[in-house]
Amino acid sequence: MEVIREKQAMRDWTRAQRKAGERIAFIPTMGYLHEGHLSLVREAKLHATKVVVSVYVNSAQFAPGEDLSTYPRDFEGDLKRLKPLDVNVVFNPFDLYNRDSSTENFSGHETWIRVERLEKPLCGNDRPIFFRGVATIVAKLFNIIEPDVAIFGKKDYQQWRVIRRMVRDLDFAVEIIGCPISREEDGLAMSSRNVRLSATDRQNSLSISRSLREAEEAVKSGETDARVLEELVLKAITSAGGSVDYAKIVDQETLQEVKTVEFPVVFAVAARFGSVRLLDNMELQPPSLPPSNPVSPQPTPGPKLGHEIVFF
Amino acid sequence: MEVIREKQAMRDWTRAQRKAGERIAFIPTMGYLHEGHLSLVREAKLHATKVVVSVYVNSAQFAPGEDLSTYPRDFEGDLKRLKPLDVNVVFNPFDLYNRDSSTENFSGHETWIRVERLEKPLCGNDRPIFFRGVATIVAKLFNIIEPDVAIFGKKDYQQWRVIRRMVRDLDFAVEIIGCPISREEDGLAMSSRNVRLSATDRQNSLSISRSLREAEEAVKSGETDARVLEELVLKAITSAGGSVDYAKIVDQETLQEVKTVEFPVVFAVAARFGSVRLLDNMELQPPSLPPSNPVSPQPTPGPKLGHEIVFF
Repeated sequence: MEVIREKQAMRDWTRAQRKAGERIAFIPTMGYLHEGHLSLVREAKLHATKVVVSVYVNSAQFAPGEDLSTYPRDFEGDLKRLKPLDVNVVFNPFDLYNRDSSTENFSGHETWIRVERLEKPLCGNDRPIFFRGVATIVAKLFNIIEPDVAIFGKKDYQQWRVIRRMVRDLDFAVEIIGCPISREEDGLAMSSRNVRLSATDRQNSLSISRSLREAEEAVKSGETDARVLEELVLKAITSAGGSVDYAKIVDQETLQEVKTVEFPVVFAVAARFGSVRLLDNMELQPPSLPPSNPVSPQPTPGPKLGHEIVFF
Repeated sequence: MEVIREKQAMRDWTRAQRKAGERIAFIPTMGYLHEGHLSLVREAKLHATKVVVSVYVNSAQFAPGEDLSTYPRDFEGDLKRLKPLDVNVVFNPFDLYNRDSSTENFSGHETWIRVERLEKPLCGNDRPIFFRGVATIVAKLFNIIEPDVAIFGKKDYQQWRVIRRMVRDLDFAVEIIGCPISREEDGLAMSSRNVRLSATDRQNSLSISRSLREAEEAVKSGETDARVLEELVLKAITSAGGSVDYAKIVDQETLQEVKTVEFPVVFAVAARFGSVRLLDNMELQPPSLPPSNPVSPQPTPGPKLGHEIVFF
């Protein structure tokens, strides 16, 4: 396993591999890797012969006052976790923005990619520059690494949709694959931020995944009123001491709110326990629809709702 | 010379060529080719072994009411002009935007690249979505064609700066080369739009290049007050019946207005004669500076001011 830090060395590596007939998969991460990331690596190996994982905390997606400085980091631990999975390259670049060297700002960088509709709802409400930062760094990494396929976790559902849209609209030659949420045994969606939960908050945060499952059951039993389902989740999390940023049932592709669950939607939640902001979501379909995703073709049927792999 | 219309066929062509060790140059155009474009093709052949020219009128850079519908087109003539220059591929794609099929709008396309500072002054003042459209289509074409080097004319000076900046900020693996303005024998900067000038306007429009040369002479004689020089050009064009959108002396890299010509600047002009909007510009340096461009290294010295090739 090779660690590459220079942009040109990274691109040279990919080009040499491609010339030799290899197919390259790429997984962008901000490090502090957990089982969720490792599941993306395993998925990557199904789609390619070589795997590149980037570890880079993208400052451009943090607004002032957000948790950039406290975002957990453990590069040596990351390498230990990746090694047994036969990852070929860990790309751990120096700063990727042309900054005024004397400051932390982006004075030397002025090009930003906006996915204008998908960046606005859900997380975009509270974090107006977040998806601008995500789209821009992913485009940069695609241009540096030049992968054939890239793997994203659907825990960050809106991010996955933003990237798919960007790739389609800007004609990137990269296949985008979304992977199911990896969960702890008790149901909590895996996240690098989970380590910052207190023991009590850790327990209370289970209200998120538990209430999402309850909503799923309610839909199966015939409830299709989105407001009723959202109220169920909102109350469960609030009662457990969480603060809900949003709990919305939205169209899977446009992320626009729906009134009734009459076509495939996703129930997306962001909630805070203590100072830790957690995301979770569940794809839902009304009982009348067969369990498939009409937005995209689905070559391999997924084992259960919200856990399918959708090909772009 | 091959005409390719499909995105995938275009990318397959480049990848096969690169695998065979070829180096690919790309010249994006909106067609109706003139000697200025052909000079870009000749430049391209100095930097690559294969040349791709795209012919595509990019609707995304025209606002409603601008001259999209009357933009001159002559694809058969373009092919005849390119053939003697041993161009390898003319990429003439179908619509490159995911549109709502029933309308002319961009309902199916929502990803836009903004070069936030450079897109605003000069042409950006009157055409707020112009460089958004330019940057986005060039990124798409780079992703489809995957060239090693791309050639741009410095007649569209702001466009050239916007693209250079985008390539640097987003890490595109494309070398950007700027070429000097090609002029008619009487000095008019070549443009596809020139054919739409009436005979009288054609004659009067010479006031643009003539007054820019006068400004250049004035600088050589010691005049460094930007407002005085701008007034000279403004008066000359207005007296000839033209309407000046802007006549500004700006920093070559940031395109910000300067008060005095004390470092390398560019005198950028946009003016209308009849309904035709014409661009011209001249790079200027104060007499105290040696004739080189401090913004970028300059491997081959240019023959005269405003006519050097600047490497990115």
